[in-house]
Amino acid sequence: MMSKQIPDIVVGRLPQYLRSLQRMAREGRTVTSSQELGERLGISAAQIRKDLSQFGEFGKQGTGYNISYLIEQLQKILHVDHEWDVAVIGAGDIGSAVARYKGFINRGFKVRMIFDNDPNKIGQTIGDFVVQDYAKLKEKISEAGIKIAMIAVPANLAQEVANQLVEAGVKAILNYAPISINVPAGVRVQYIDPSIHLQRMTYYLE
Amino acid sequence: MMSKQIPDIVVGRLPQYLRSLQRMAREGRTVTSSQELGERLGISAAQIRKDLSQFGEFGKQGTGYNISYLIEQLQKILHVDHEWDVAVIGAGDIGSAVARYKGFINRGFKVRMIFDNDPNKIGQTIGDFVVQDYAKLKEKISEAGIKIAMIAVPANLAQEVANQLVEAGVKAILNYAPISINVPAGVRVQYIDPSIHLQRMTYYLE
Repeated sequence: MMSKQIPDIVVGRLPQYLRSLQRMAREGRTVTSSQELGERLGISAAQIRKDLSQFGEFGKQGTGYNISYLIEQLQKILHVDHEWDVAVIGAGDIGSAVARYKGFINRGFKVRMIFDNDPNKIGQTIGDFVVQDYAKLKEKISEAGIKIAMIAVPANLAQEVANQLVEAGVKAILNYAPISINVPAGVRVQYIDPSIHLQRMTYYLE
Repeated sequence: MMSKQIPDIVVGRLPQYLRSLQRMAREGRTVTSSQELGERLGISAAQIRKDLSQFGEFGKQGTGYNISYLIEQLQKILHVDHEWDVAVIGAGDIGSAVARYKGFINRGFKVRMIFDNDPNKIGQTIGDFVVQDYAKLKEKISEAGIKIAMIAVPANLAQEVANQLVEAGVKAILNYAPISINVPAGVRVQYIDPSIHLQRMTYYLE
């Protein structure tokens, strides 16, 4: 059932469904509906049913979705039924906040190491981590088999860092630097740039 | 020319174009093409031409786009030809990093105030700001006429904070809390949740 090509826009909604379902589970809930999920997310119930149906049959007409079962299935589909080790590059404000971030717990990710090239930062402690020397990034990341990294360096350094990460075997990069980076086929990049999100809203203001 | 409804997906790409153009300008460039912009962004040249053509005529066939002119036009379209005051709610790791973030400079935003409800944080200094009492949020924000806010509080408090912001007159919310929030029509929300971005990539891994 996973052989057909699912549109990336559909893939992009699955983590939102998963997050909402996990929240419901924490609230002690056991069953939900596409209607309820839709109201929480601002997505139509029909869209949610259509998205989920691309991956299989997860609910019965009239009885709704079993929350813990659907969580399990979505975790498998998104490959977060186990925890991924993550490296953070850049120990400035953003990198430090991300390294200490509690929001990765139960979401499938665990920060394992943080790097910087600033001699004043190398060796310092951030949360549970000692900041490591950027010069050793490639060696340490490939040794640990880390496939996921977050870039939190100034924009002008982001491409060079990305190149190093790709050489180290990283396959997924979350880039906090406000610049587009180029990576070879087979490597994925997602971006977090608050100005981009804000500008998308100011378009509608005034 | 602004009267027709532009799809939000198109609006969402404009900030990316603007960011790339501003970078080119900083590199001393004066003219670019949809091809070059497309290569930098991983978006097709045809898509870029089509998106921009929805807003007017910004380039001549064969001579490309004048960078500073196109920057100016995009800033007007996105309403960032002036600076918006922004409030940050939550003075934890993320809120503090966002309040100190240099990446808003020249992007149309300036953090003006930060709030928290923790007596140990109220009165403390973060960058250029003294953390203000959350109890005064509504009063301070409506007094200052602030229309944009960033929520960086724990998930279980985000909806309550959003309600207060809406009552204070805020029209655009960037939510860093990993939870969907409901706002009335006329108020926009965008989300930053690194786990969501990462899960969108792990789908393709393994």
